[in-house]
Amino acid sequence: MIQVSDIEAAAERLAGVAHETPVVTSRTLDAAVGATVVLKPENLQRGGSFKIRGAYNKISSLSGEVRRGGVVTFSSGNHAQAVAIAAALCHTRAVIVMPDDAPPTKLAATAGYGADIVTYDRYREDRAEIAGRLERDQGLTLVPPYDDPLVMAGQGTATLELLAQAGPLDVLVVPVGGGGLIAGSATALLARSPGAIAIGVEPEAGDDTRRSLESGERVELPAVPRTIADGLQPVTPGRLTFEMNARVVDHIVVVSDEEIRDAMRFLFERMKLVVEPSGAVGVAALLVGKIDVAGRRVGVIVSGGNIGVDRFIEVLG
Amino acid sequence: MIQVSDIEAAAERLAGVAHETPVVTSRTLDAAVGATVVLKPENLQRGGSFKIRGAYNKISSLSGEVRRGGVVTFSSGNHAQAVAIAAALCHTRAVIVMPDDAPPTKLAATAGYGADIVTYDRYREDRAEIAGRLERDQGLTLVPPYDDPLVMAGQGTATLELLAQAGPLDVLVVPVGGGGLIAGSATALLARSPGAIAIGVEPEAGDDTRRSLESGERVELPAVPRTIADGLQPVTPGRLTFEMNARVVDHIVVVSDEEIRDAMRFLFERMKLVVEPSGAVGVAALLVGKIDVAGRRVGVIVSGGNIGVDRFIEVLG
Repeated sequence: MIQVSDIEAAAERLAGVAHETPVVTSRTLDAAVGATVVLKPENLQRGGSFKIRGAYNKISSLSGEVRRGGVVTFSSGNHAQAVAIAAALCHTRAVIVMPDDAPPTKLAATAGYGADIVTYDRYREDRAEIAGRLERDQGLTLVPPYDDPLVMAGQGTATLELLAQAGPLDVLVVPVGGGGLIAGSATALLARSPGAIAIGVEPEAGDDTRRSLESGERVELPAVPRTIADGLQPVTPGRLTFEMNARVVDHIVVVSDEEIRDAMRFLFERMKLVVEPSGAVGVAALLVGKIDVAGRRVGVIVSGGNIGVDRFIEVLG
Repeated sequence: MIQVSDIEAAAERLAGVAHETPVVTSRTLDAAVGATVVLKPENLQRGGSFKIRGAYNKISSLSGEVRRGGVVTFSSGNHAQAVAIAAALCHTRAVIVMPDDAPPTKLAATAGYGADIVTYDRYREDRAEIAGRLERDQGLTLVPPYDDPLVMAGQGTATLELLAQAGPLDVLVVPVGGGGLIAGSATALLARSPGAIAIGVEPEAGDDTRRSLESGERVELPAVPRTIADGLQPVTPGRLTFEMNARVVDHIVVVSDEEIRDAMRFLFERMKLVVEPSGAVGVAALLVGKIDVAGRRVGVIVSGGNIGVDRFIEVLG
């Protein structure tokens, strides 16, 4: 279990490395949901998502010799870029295991940060196994995308910042993929804003954390969920994140892809923010009234903005 | 002529009314242009552009009786929305003269802020004449979009803020339509960042201010310029803004619509910001190397983000 002191320590490590993203508000949003809403736009973070917080906290905490040996991770998304950036900042090597059919722009962006890319055939090979082999054979250290105390603590710093910037909240709304962001965020919230509750948001098709929390044990979905929220597709919660979230998360709500599209449009047109589908689920849940927030002070983590113009047009056109 | 003291007075009036927009930076942008670049994203301002600064400074400065009589302006764009918002904040009436073929969303947005809309046929009627008649007949006061000392001073507050946030600059890059934003911005810059220069950016097809400054007198273009930068279409500089800008602006550069599109895409993909064509001209000029900034500290006013998803797709799709 992580404590708020772990998140405070992470915030110290991240000072001058992660951006202190601003708080953004919208009278239109407040009027639409009948609450006072403060958004934490982590799409404006380095690397375009909150992921640098956890990745850098993890890598910079490795002892000198271990760190010098390099790190490895498997991800085709925001975590890959974050590990590449964080490793470069820590002057060490990053190896990223990515599917060979990942978008060329993502491969290029990750390589552009100086990482070595190892591709695999995602229909025939197991990425965790490949990463494990690289760990053993090359002396690399794995940086998990969420199921790690230092990663969870790093992700929680976004909420520490938000509370320092905007004051106490009644409700915090957080996207849920593997559960690392909400584990850290809810821990920070409960420590710093007594009486507040943390609510997670998953895509309808990928509600593994909702099912798991409701049944009291980790549930595994039968297949990778079909959703535009490509950052929220794990089929089961992490072992550590599940244990944490069972204690610190109030409940989970789900949103449809259509509701996510509407929220992306709202964020674009009314708030001038580019937000990827996974990052828009919190605003989506508020706009359709799936969370009872009337008259309350509500924080929302807008977790990332890594979507190209062409994909954006595909999704919203 | 306005002085920096006029801009300071405007900043006091605007405190708590306009947002203090953040400063945003991008290592990718810095690397691309070989300079240290700080952007002032006025797309995140109330009403989606810097225009609230000038409109509120003007309306809130009117004496009680005059202000109570209401205000009028003609605009189909950001100034209209800004006057509507500012009038509501000052508890007075706003009448906005808009073409009857303005996008329904713009008409609705302006009406949504509580303004009265008067439409006209832009192929057969003169909007200034209509506004003049409303002034006389209804006792309204005109809020000009740029050619007014209080409007210019209000617009200059964005640069006062930027300098307070980011420190001294060597170069400030500012979009130029009627010239109000750059008149205020350059005045603030020269007073607060000695030795710095202000450079304006116009669309190629709408280079009336460039021609005017080069020839030493106000030049009028033969027709409304064809450009995607719909906020930068005046055919001639204002009388006051021309006089001001002849003294405070170093020079003007121009960018093509294609260069503006590339900058909008860069701002979307790398900085996660929704910027309308007129707002992207400064970044466009930097990205194509039209301004010599090597090794310097460069500020850029990103003036607005009022573009709907559908129009965005039309422009970039």
